[in-house]
Amino acid sequence: MPKYHDELDAVLRALADPTRRAVVERLAQSPAVVSELAAPFSMALPSLMQHLRVLEDAGLITSEKHGRVRTVSLRPGALGVLHLWLDEQRTPAERQADRLGIHLTRTNPKET
Amino acid sequence: MPKYHDELDAVLRALADPTRRAVVERLAQSPAVVSELAAPFSMALPSLMQHLRVLEDAGLITSEKHGRVRTVSLRPGALGVLHLWLDEQRTPAERQADRLGIHLTRTNPKET
Repeated sequence: MPKYHDELDAVLRALADPTRRAVVERLAQSPAVVSELAAPFSMALPSLMQHLRVLEDAGLITSEKHGRVRTVSLRPGALGVLHLWLDEQRTPAERQADRLGIHLTRTNPKET
Repeated sequence: MPKYHDELDAVLRALADPTRRAVVERLAQSPAVVSELAAPFSMALPSLMQHLRVLEDAGLITSEKHGRVRTVSLRPGALGVLHLWLDEQRTPAERQADRLGIHLTRTNPKET
């Protein structure tokens, strides 16, 4: 699955930076305009825009411009590829613990 | 939480390489000796060892030498930091879907 692995490479590289992760964390709450995203960082706007481009190229965010205001959103299911890969890496012991957990009606959302 | 973020940086950077991910995928099944790990890759042993060092520095794997044989294992809970971060990024809509899933599991236990 070369496409899957290319996508994973891009997503992991994009997230391996604390500023870009902070942007994703903020957008997981709600969409935001660029100036709002910039506010918590002591960073020049061009540097932030560069980070946003990396996130957009990795398929993690989308943005839309209305007039002079650009609104940035987390792409729905953006982190799905990473969830999928992590699920595949569950060790046999973890899978067994999961089955026990499900039995005890603690949930793994994907199983319900 | 600087330590948490440093750990995440290292884990994400380590996993943003298809060879290193393939090693993690293999080790999620069971520990392996270095020659077994090298077999599927057309790669010189020193290059593989370099990848293993990156994975070990990121806290993802451990290795033990018995005589001349080095056995490599996935560190238990190695991917926990990534699971934790991903869980924190669930959007409000995803959290709501989770709660619905939990409700359905509890009220309809036979389905799980």
